[in-house]
Amino acid sequence: MVVNTFMIELSCPNLNVNNPDSSSKVIEKVLNEYSLTKNSVSLLNDGFAMVFSSETSCSAFVRAYPDGLLTIDIHERVVSGENNRFSNDILSHIENKMKSEGASRTLSLTTPVKRGTKFNCYFPTTVGLLIEYDFDELVFEEQTPFQNVKIYHSPQFGNMLILDDDPNLAESDIIYTRTICGSGRENFKDKNILILGGGDGGILNELLKQNPAYVTMVEIDQVVIDASVKYLRGICDSAMDKLEGDNYKVIVEDCVPWLEKFIKEGKKFDYVINDLTAIPVTPEPVGEMWEFMRKILNLSISVLSDNGKYFTQGNGLNAQSALKMYEKQLNLLETRVEYSKEKVFVPSYLECWVFYEVWKKL
Amino acid sequence: MVVNTFMIELSCPNLNVNNPDSSSKVIEKVLNEYSLTKNSVSLLNDGFAMVFSSETSCSAFVRAYPDGLLTIDIHERVVSGENNRFSNDILSHIENKMKSEGASRTLSLTTPVKRGTKFNCYFPTTVGLLIEYDFDELVFEEQTPFQNVKIYHSPQFGNMLILDDDPNLAESDIIYTRTICGSGRENFKDKNILILGGGDGGILNELLKQNPAYVTMVEIDQVVIDASVKYLRGICDSAMDKLEGDNYKVIVEDCVPWLEKFIKEGKKFDYVINDLTAIPVTPEPVGEMWEFMRKILNLSISVLSDNGKYFTQGNGLNAQSALKMYEKQLNLLETRVEYSKEKVFVPSYLECWVFYEVWKKL
Repeated sequence: MVVNTFMIELSCPNLNVNNPDSSSKVIEKVLNEYSLTKNSVSLLNDGFAMVFSSETSCSAFVRAYPDGLLTIDIHERVVSGENNRFSNDILSHIENKMKSEGASRTLSLTTPVKRGTKFNCYFPTTVGLLIEYDFDELVFEEQTPFQNVKIYHSPQFGNMLILDDDPNLAESDIIYTRTICGSGRENFKDKNILILGGGDGGILNELLKQNPAYVTMVEIDQVVIDASVKYLRGICDSAMDKLEGDNYKVIVEDCVPWLEKFIKEGKKFDYVINDLTAIPVTPEPVGEMWEFMRKILNLSISVLSDNGKYFTQGNGLNAQSALKMYEKQLNLLETRVEYSKEKVFVPSYLECWVFYEVWKKL
Repeated sequence: MVVNTFMIELSCPNLNVNNPDSSSKVIEKVLNEYSLTKNSVSLLNDGFAMVFSSETSCSAFVRAYPDGLLTIDIHERVVSGENNRFSNDILSHIENKMKSEGASRTLSLTTPVKRGTKFNCYFPTTVGLLIEYDFDELVFEEQTPFQNVKIYHSPQFGNMLILDDDPNLAESDIIYTRTICGSGRENFKDKNILILGGGDGGILNELLKQNPAYVTMVEIDQVVIDASVKYLRGICDSAMDKLEGDNYKVIVEDCVPWLEKFIKEGKKFDYVINDLTAIPVTPEPVGEMWEFMRKILNLSISVLSDNGKYFTQGNGLNAQSALKMYEKQLNLLETRVEYSKEKVFVPSYLECWVFYEVWKKL
């Protein structure tokens, strides 16, 4: 059973919200055409609310506001095997009827919000835009000590990794991996590289094609690695079939103690690629997430060779204030750094994403 | 004034829908915490509905269904200058409270649907997925004899052309233009090319860079051309500053009579690039739109030189049945043709798009 919620909004300048009975006549007439009859009217502080229902699994919530805004939400229960009765044609009809009765302007979601579905297809972008994905299967789910790991299948994006309900990477997104590796500007042959995170294996796979001297990858969650090897071949290919080879090693542990160990040993890397988390979107650059981000940044710069480069994802292009806060942090680091940024559209994010390249100012 | 609609759904197996008073106690307790008090209860054929409201511009519609699905829609009126009270934190709190009272599973839109906004930011994909755009300005709007022409500004996509409420092309979408011109596989130097439609100027601009012998473009709507020259420079650059040059001409007329004229004159083109409309998404390949599509296809193949190529957009990758119907039409053409297709992600469509290359089977 799924409930489709169709949402209409109308601007009705002639609406008298203090007299719901008179002003609701038109609404009633239109909804009656679809067997929706009035159940209740509530006079509220700022307008009125009405509930309509039909004998056949439909109900409607009508809400009128003082300045003439009228919203109609039609909830249709769709039992599998039965045809649903509501569609955009009917919505258009309701809108046009209301228009002919004086509604001056109409907008509506031309596609319903689906509820009671098997799994969630709605994920917001970084600045809270509503996005519905085309997932048709939940391929994998496990709650690990570190996070909730889900993999959905999307006809457009292939399998897609979602960590703690945050879209991470899909098989369609080679552009993400290429960009966080410097968009082809770098030559990784014979270089020493450290990957922080990167459990989907995309970066490791990309680097190993170029004969690096040695790649060290420190990913905390074995479950992400195992699920990627099984379901995200389009990202990792065979790069993680073994966790150690002649010129690479995947360490399944927290990266912070490893960074501290490398600093103590005086070990340096030509490249550090941080694929941990995106820049936090918060009002101020404070709190646990920002502390972690600053810590990783400082530790990473400390293990970077003098001519080394640090690559990381930033956040959505629309998260401008978060990006600006991050750039301010970069300018406050003990070791003076310079940076450049690059924006690319990552398909499965349905959003334009910003990446950073950071190097020591010598 | 804007109304934010937050949508929550809960699965409550213990819900007794025939006894709303007893089963709504928990819901009431939770909503009371946010000053939402009960206005009405309606016992319906398949469950119950309740209306809640507060003194401060909030109302809620609660709907319970027989199998335990419970939906809560909180509508918050946000008057400019005032802080809105509802947020995801509060939604999480409500969900968790309901969970602790026995709700077994919860989903919610973590971002509200915005209503009463200045302009519509919600456009569905070809298969009815809900997408919210980041438009911050309606740059241009005009109703022409042919269509409704709108240009919105998006921080991510630049200016974006919308015809009859259908997203057409944005300044971010050079990939669309390159793909419909054969993705760099073709050499247009000294070739004769016909563009059907293409009023945004992208294809003309791309072709003129390559010194073609002559480009004829037939676009029906002068308003689209003028608006593109003014607001879509990122697409057309200076290609349409003059409508005629040494090796090109833009004819502002219906392309059908021109195709018929070219056939009568025996004129042939090395390339025909059809940038008119996408493949219709309908249950069967019938109706006016399909007739038009078949007509254009037949006329275009008729003016194509024996080794010529016909390029066109298809539709979203997810509109599989529409694509299959189109391919069936290709196989039914009087002139036997072969075809190949290519899929690319067009950023402003927020969708993977399919393009066709068609040539005569000799």
